[in-house]
Amino acid sequence: MRFSEPNAESLAKLAEVVFLALPHGVAAEYAVPLLQLGCRVIDLSADFRLKSAAVYKEFYAHDHPAPDLLKKSVYGLPEVYRAQIQNASLVASPGCYPTSILVPTIPLLRDGLIKPSAIIADSLSGLSGAGRKLEPEYLFVDCNESVRPYGIPKHRHLSEIEQELSLSAKAPVAIQFTPHLVPVNRGILTTLYLAPAPHFEGRAGLPPAHSGETGTTLEALNEKIAACYQAAYGNEPFVRLLDPDKSALPDTKNVVGTNVIEIAWRLDPRTGRLIVMSAVDNLIKGASGQALQCFNILCGFPETTGLI
Amino acid sequence: MRFSEPNAESLAKLAEVVFLALPHGVAAEYAVPLLQLGCRVIDLSADFRLKSAAVYKEFYAHDHPAPDLLKKSVYGLPEVYRAQIQNASLVASPGCYPTSILVPTIPLLRDGLIKPSAIIADSLSGLSGAGRKLEPEYLFVDCNESVRPYGIPKHRHLSEIEQELSLSAKAPVAIQFTPHLVPVNRGILTTLYLAPAPHFEGRAGLPPAHSGETGTTLEALNEKIAACYQAAYGNEPFVRLLDPDKSALPDTKNVVGTNVIEIAWRLDPRTGRLIVMSAVDNLIKGASGQALQCFNILCGFPETTGLI
Amino acid sequence: MRFSEPNAESLAKLAEVVFLALPHGVAAEYAVPLLQLGCRVIDLSADFRLKSAAVYKEFYAHDHPAPDLLKKSVYGLPEVYRAQIQNASLVASPGCYPTSILVPTIPLLRDGLIKPSAIIADSLSGLSGAGRKLEPEYLFVDCNESVRPYGIPKHRHLSEIEQELSLSAKAPVAIQFTPHLVPVNRGILTTLYLAPAPHFEGRAGLPPAHSGETGTTLEALNEKIAACYQAAYGNEPFVRLLDPDKSALPDTKNVVGTNVIEIAWRLDPRTGRLIVMSAVDNLIKGASGQALQCFNILCGFPETTGLI
Amino acid sequence: MRFSEPNAESLAKLAEVVFLALPHGVAAEYAVPLLQLGCRVIDLSADFRLKSAAVYKEFYAHDHPAPDLLKKSVYGLPEVYRAQIQNASLVASPGCYPTSILVPTIPLLRDGLIKPSAIIADSLSGLSGAGRKLEPEYLFVDCNESVRPYGIPKHRHLSEIEQELSLSAKAPVAIQFTPHLVPVNRGILTTLYLAPAPHFEGRAGLPPAHSGETGTTLEALNEKIAACYQAAYGNEPFVRLLDPDKSALPDTKNVVGTNVIEIAWRLDPRTGRLIVMSAVDNLIKGASGQALQCFNILCGFPETTGLI
Repeated sequence: MRFSEPNAESLAKLAEVVFLALPHGVAAEYAVPLLQLGCRVIDLSADFRLKSAAVYKEFYAHDHPAPDLLKKSVYGLPEVYRAQIQNASLVASPGCYPTSILVPTIPLLRDGLIKPSAIIADSLSGLSGAGRKLEPEYLFVDCNESVRPYGIPKHRHLSEIEQELSLSAKAPVAIQFTPHLVPVNRGILTTLYLAPAPHFEGRAGLPPAHSGETGTTLEALNEKIAACYQAAYGNEPFVRLLDPDKSALPDTKNVVGTNVIEIAWRLDPRTGRLIVMSAVDNLIKGASGQALQCFNILCGFPETTGLI
Repeated sequence: MRFSEPNAESLAKLAEVVFLALPHGVAAEYAVPLLQLGCRVIDLSADFRLKSAAVYKEFYAHDHPAPDLLKKSVYGLPEVYRAQIQNASLVASPGCYPTSILVPTIPLLRDGLIKPSAIIADSLSGLSGAGRKLEPEYLFVDCNESVRPYGIPKHRHLSEIEQELSLSAKAPVAIQFTPHLVPVNRGILTTLYLAPAPHFEGRAGLPPAHSGETGTTLEALNEKIAACYQAAYGNEPFVRLLDPDKSALPDTKNVVGTNVIEIAWRLDPRTGRLIVMSAVDNLIKGASGQALQCFNILCGFPETTGLI
Repeated sequence: MRFSEPNAESLAKLAEVVFLALPHGVAAEYAVPLLQLGCRVIDLSADFRLKSAAVYKEFYAHDHPAPDLLKKSVYGLPEVYRAQIQNASLVASPGCYPTSILVPTIPLLRDGLIKPSAIIADSLSGLSGAGRKLEPEYLFVDCNESVRPYGIPKHRHLSEIEQELSLSAKAPVAIQFTPHLVPVNRGILTTLYLAPAPHFEGRAGLPPAHSGETGTTLEALNEKIAACYQAAYGNEPFVRLLDPDKSALPDTKNVVGTNVIEIAWRLDPRTGRLIVMSAVDNLIKGASGQALQCFNILCGFPETTGLI
Repeated sequence: MRFSEPNAESLAKLAEVVFLALPHGVAAEYAVPLLQLGCRVIDLSADFRLKSAAVYKEFYAHDHPAPDLLKKSVYGLPEVYRAQIQNASLVASPGCYPTSILVPTIPLLRDGLIKPSAIIADSLSGLSGAGRKLEPEYLFVDCNESVRPYGIPKHRHLSEIEQELSLSAKAPVAIQFTPHLVPVNRGILTTLYLAPAPHFEGRAGLPPAHSGETGTTLEALNEKIAACYQAAYGNEPFVRLLDPDKSALPDTKNVVGTNVIEIAWRLDPRTGRLIVMSAVDNLIKGASGQALQCFNILCGFPETTGLI
């Protein structure tokens, strides 16, 4: 279907979907009556991202206002849940950090290429990630020429990240996540430190000197990772896999203003670790753009409508 | 001794010390005749940082011009080698990334508090770290509003970092090091991901659910780390330990323009990992300031002369 | 005509128009054979902006390669030359500074509201205005945290600015133009210092104490300026007139990424001067966007196609 | 006198001087009892900069709390009022914009080289000029990648600028002053548009074609300006006159972190106008550094103590 001229059918679809861009807690209060009216809801808050009301309370410090809706909600990551989004009445659009971490990690976990217990995500975010909070730490002079970590070690986004990684790994996953603020308006750069799964270890792995066959095994693992990403994202319109044979690495300036996530990886023969890097625009792929992508899926419109 | 009025003795000391700020390879060529003339040399290049000419060749891609000098040279990290610097004829001033990594890591390794095999250093550097290279990637428009990794996985500074960590651990250490460029002029922010040594693991450690005594052991480890840093740096004029009980974390803007390194740490009870963060001015504590600190030590001047 | 589905007619139009984005001197060499082949040319260089080959040589330091084409060329400022652009075979797309200066000044000159002899344009430009020249002054560290004038007092763009102002004033105009570099990627902010025409002077004007009727005359002039801009630009899709009764002033961040020029003005009752301020994106309204606007006019497409 | 070792005399001097860094209105309330106690006061607020309580009320919107003190106060511009500062009991440290405008303009006015009625000052300020006000317009994302005028046309600093210019010109002076915000932390760049005094006009001046002797007269005026600045500032420790024969122009990055004001000028042969540009650090020469310079003068210490 080509989305050019409005017609009765497409307009009707538009009318039945509501985007909610409200603070957590408040969003749920609006979602309940809207869903009862038969609307489909795409929520940009954290209210419907978690499956567990208990985890919600642990991370957001208040009772969930509508816990019964949690099991109805679909986590709005199109690359992972496209089929479920198509028929969802309630889509919870992911956070910006989670998007930058989950998209590169989930395929590796699903294919058993990495250890679920040793995931470290180091993220650098521009200031729009903080919203427009009127606090001294977000004033220009406090942010410009400043580079700093914050929220160490327990950021709220951990809850949805670990939920989704656990689902992919089919086992509980606890990760290390350290966000930092850097003086740009938009963009998140995430560097992931991953350990190849045990059957690759000692071969691709650390220390290289202990393994006569390192070179070949490393090459094999490299190919498996490439194949894994190619299978998962080769046809995705908004995932750009950077060729590991070329020197390109992700750069926020290459994705800001777009709905694209850039991904690159390097296997380090010295340590055996897998380094995966991603870049997204926190306001687009990490928020409104991804929500619009879900909307297109929900409505049966071409997925890139309004996004390229 | 107070360094106020110049006198014959202090002037004579000044005259016999030469600072070299030359590219690697060239610096060694100047150092040889200067040392033969009886001068003491403080070299800011990479030429005398490594003990092994082979490692030098591996990382700098040419034969070392004066390999015999390598064993004479003292690595100019005052917090670690103060006594040796006092009598050195040749001081190799450390690189900026190594300073930001070694100062927070060495005491933990020496005291056996962390595993030497699981060190990850994620560093964010301002653009002055790249020098004034006339390459398109350093133009304003290519750097501003850009956040990106580079040189993954084998940066030259790894050679001196691993040499010094191995000396501290009394065992070969290979670390993960990923530098990134962020759009500030000056400053390096390093986030270190460390694993507590085995005898703390499973207690402070991961997964917390497996250990009934986690809380208390974590507290114990926390105290050991605090004591370790206090013993190592409590009296250091240029190390600022941020109190873990307060919320302060390092910020490059708090150290830029100074010779100070800021250090903070957090034990993550969810993962058992130790997160250590540091901030330095790459041009001062990471270069000229540290060299001046060595000069003061060499000459017997008060160590902070000209630096505070 | 709505430009949705490609058809034979619209494709044929596309095929006969060529955009040239080449250095001055070179562009003219390409334009000559293309025009002979019957193509219509939109040139983004300075080669066809000036009517006089002598002025071209004075400002660009070489003979014009195709002086005969100068009289055929239309200066591609849609708000001023829309009718001529429609039938042009050769459109010279204006420079970025000239766009930011000419759009706010020409209507005032044409309506005789300001003195042609007292125009001062103070412009602030982001670094993309300098192109990607590999010179030390454009490195990040040389531009970041730096604010500086350059090219004082004779910038190349003066030639086209004065040509167009002279045409509007029907008399030779020499202006003061001082460009500055400020550390942003994109955007030009121009502040114009203008003197009301003599018949307003001494009434709206300086010094206010000398004129009993200042208040009312100032109000009258204010209304004339508002009417002048409304008549000139009230229907322009890419000119945003900021209401002088509200406090809004132009801001590059409000136009970057768009083809819009923002304009605001203030009459200063203390000095009698008229201050006009404009903001454009130097890469869009100041370059490619404006060229595309001309292309739409040339082809008879809706003028905003591809631009909003 | 060399200020090295503290002694009874120098300590006594320190004790009798009080710096006030308080909001306007409040500063005056503290100054009154301090002066009555015999202290000497250096005030960084606007409370004692104006000679007229009426002008103060016009610009600061409340009655002056201590109008009798206004005639006692000395305006703390060392390059202009050094002798008076020496014996002052109350010094009013100038604002940042005024410093950047007055230092380059006053000598030209005093020597009758420029018309007092045609002064335009276009200033660009970093964000620290706004203090740490918690308002949305000062958040990082609102300032970064933004260039904008504000406070047009009547900024508070006009009052002290015009007072001091009028004193220098020995006639009432009203100037045009337009401040802008640019995304740097520190620094003010001011571009002054000045008209040579009538006896130079038509000769150096506009339009050049009307004057056979332009070249030589322009040269003469150029020499007079150079001589004027040399006489006024040739021996000033904190004024850096950039040689007009060389290409250097002021740049905030060259003065940030110092108490220096950089000044350059260009006579434009095309328009006859004189363009003077200055750069200061708004927090040092525009505030605390200049106050410290006054303190040194007040105490008889070497004027550069603590400043270089």
